[in-house]
Amino acid sequence: MPAIAHIQTDHYLIPLPRTLEDSMHGQMSDFEVVTVRITDRDGAMGTGYTFTCGVNGGAIANILSREMGPHVTGKDADLIEAIWKDLWWTFHYGGRGGPTVLALSALDMALWDLKAKRAGLPLWRLLGGYDPRVPCYAGGIDIDLSPEELVAQTHANFEKGHRAIKMKVGRDRLSEDVAKMAAMRDAFGADMPLMADANMKYTVAGAIRAARAFADFDLTWFEEPIPPDDPAGHARVQTEGGIPVATGENLRSLWDFKTVIETGGVSFPEPDVTNCGGVTPFMKIARLAEAHHLPVTSHGAHDITVQLLAACPNRSYLEAHGFGLEAYVKTPLLIENGHAIAPEGPGHGVAFDWDRLESRRA
Amino acid sequence: MPAIAHIQTDHYLIPLPRTLEDSMHGQMSDFEVVTVRITDRDGAMGTGYTFTCGVNGGAIANILSREMGPHVTGKDADLIEAIWKDLWWTFHYGGRGGPTVLALSALDMALWDLKAKRAGLPLWRLLGGYDPRVPCYAGGIDIDLSPEELVAQTHANFEKGHRAIKMKVGRDRLSEDVAKMAAMRDAFGADMPLMADANMKYTVAGAIRAARAFADFDLTWFEEPIPPDDPAGHARVQTEGGIPVATGENLRSLWDFKTVIETGGVSFPEPDVTNCGGVTPFMKIARLAEAHHLPVTSHGAHDITVQLLAACPNRSYLEAHGFGLEAYVKTPLLIENGHAIAPEGPGHGVAFDWDRLESRRA
Ligand SMILES: [Mg+2]
Ligand SMILES: [Mg+2]
Repeated sequence: MPAIAHIQTDHYLIPLPRTLEDSMHGQMSDFEVVTVRITDRDGAMGTGYTFTCGVNGGAIANILSREMGPHVTGKDADLIEAIWKDLWWTFHYGGRGGPTVLALSALDMALWDLKAKRAGLPLWRLLGGYDPRVPCYAGGIDIDLSPEELVAQTHANFEKGHRAIKMKVGRDRLSEDVAKMAAMRDAFGADMPLMADANMKYTVAGAIRAARAFADFDLTWFEEPIPPDDPAGHARVQTEGGIPVATGENLRSLWDFKTVIETGGVSFPEPDVTNCGGVTPFMKIARLAEAHHLPVTSHGAHDITVQLLAACPNRSYLEAHGFGLEAYVKTPLLIENGHAIAPEGPGHGVAFDWDRLESRRA
Repeated sequence: MPAIAHIQTDHYLIPLPRTLEDSMHGQMSDFEVVTVRITDRDGAMGTGYTFTCGVNGGAIANILSREMGPHVTGKDADLIEAIWKDLWWTFHYGGRGGPTVLALSALDMALWDLKAKRAGLPLWRLLGGYDPRVPCYAGGIDIDLSPEELVAQTHANFEKGHRAIKMKVGRDRLSEDVAKMAAMRDAFGADMPLMADANMKYTVAGAIRAARAFADFDLTWFEEPIPPDDPAGHARVQTEGGIPVATGENLRSLWDFKTVIETGGVSFPEPDVTNCGGVTPFMKIARLAEAHHLPVTSHGAHDITVQLLAACPNRSYLEAHGFGLEAYVKTPLLIENGHAIAPEGPGHGVAFDWDRLESRRA
């Protein structure tokens, strides 16, 4: 058996190329990355990571290095479902969400990378294999941009190979969001897939008002219109607002997704492999969406997630958005004519530049 | 304004008097306590704490000492609602549950202690004041006890002033749970308030089966029959099983409670002030229960919680269960004839024995 010999955890603070802002998280000048490297007794290694907007990373690293790492050392790395269930329940009290589930996500990702490397398969083939070409969109954190700046950013994204765009909304004046949307349609036509992301800014009534104001712009989806704690509210926004709702980057388990899907609150579930508990629940969420005749999209960690969506017949758009981590990764995501391409190498295919990361230790 | 001058966080590992076991958490030989001491610029001090079953405590201490403490230093300690909302959203990404909300709970508790001390009022009077005599029950972690041992433990609890008892259920053989319940009714009669706690052991179908097997024993409530992630399942257990359901020790926000209450899944909401986000959301949950014509009960931290329930006209039983922390507290909870008594001193009334705790640093 591929017994887990060693787990190394590292915590980095990565400066953003420029200070970013969205409607609810305020200004962000750095983000945190916590990496996990699992080595088995044969010397094979799997890598996982999670990230935060700048807080809770010390807690994640603490759980991994003090508790989860020692807890799983010696176990059979192939039994990921067994390890996952054991960790979920061992860390349930005081965990089951928050930093604990982000730690679990990174560890689980490393186990899947290790398994795929040992099998000599890219993760997307190991997980079932559907299509390595995954439609993607450019997700910007651009609420502070003017209409002109947003259009210019979109032209730059087209040059990088993008054909679909998500913009932030949730300015204090709704008319400013509407003006930016109108500028996007003027510049890029009626058919460019366009999404809007409110980052939980609105109340239910406010979100319905905003959705109606956006009605002329044929949005593919309206993302996180309200906080994640109100599944029934999502259903109202979707039905009364008239735009399909996407949500999931702030849901933390398969069961959170089950609740909002069954409540009728989401048309585009968007799990984040770095915070939903890892590859194991991400794939279950994708299959749950398929059972409900829904597409599955994603949040964050585009380089790993392209592998997961490439294994899903119901995959919708991959969010391509690297925060700036791409400067510390030796394997850039390949984007061609609106598609991200899952690579053919073994594992999840993401190789960190550990030397460059060294200077960013938190 | 009472500006926050200093926040001290400490992390302790407290051995249990004997190893405990319940149906889902396995064996516990220690529990963790993380304390917070907030000093304002006038030198007044408030104390808060949270605890875990032995994991995630390092993460909680990390968040408090590295992040939340510095973040709130200098702020007006009286503006607890403002501080709470700011912390919730500042720590939302990667937080909103897990260690982050336990950290927030401890900090919020310290702020309320400080406010009450500055006002010269016991917390229960500050929060509204209803009745300092709060009905209570003895909650044991006793799934491994035989019927005879459980009866003997209950006699000892009666000698301590208790008149109501909660027992653990969820043994692999349901008939053993039933036999213990029968022994309790034989020994203490039909009218002793008796609750059963399954610690999330069952599936929905298993919980309904168990509830029907318990039907003859007139249980006050059936606690945590299933995991917390399934509000609709709670409703089924309650309706089809025929026993009122209590749940809440694994819910982590006002909104989690709102969902399970509105789904019809709970008759006895039981927030834990050390993990629901603190005194601030605990009181909102209690008031939400009142709005739904429901009683409110509690989990853990009996010494603080007696203050909160003493401010609630809809208070049901306080869980009196100290884990063993009482050996490190100078102010034991007073229990008289089935009631816990909220004390009249200023603040929440719990004074730790810091010297004794010193030997228990994690
Ligand atoms: Mg988003
Ligand atoms: Mg309980």
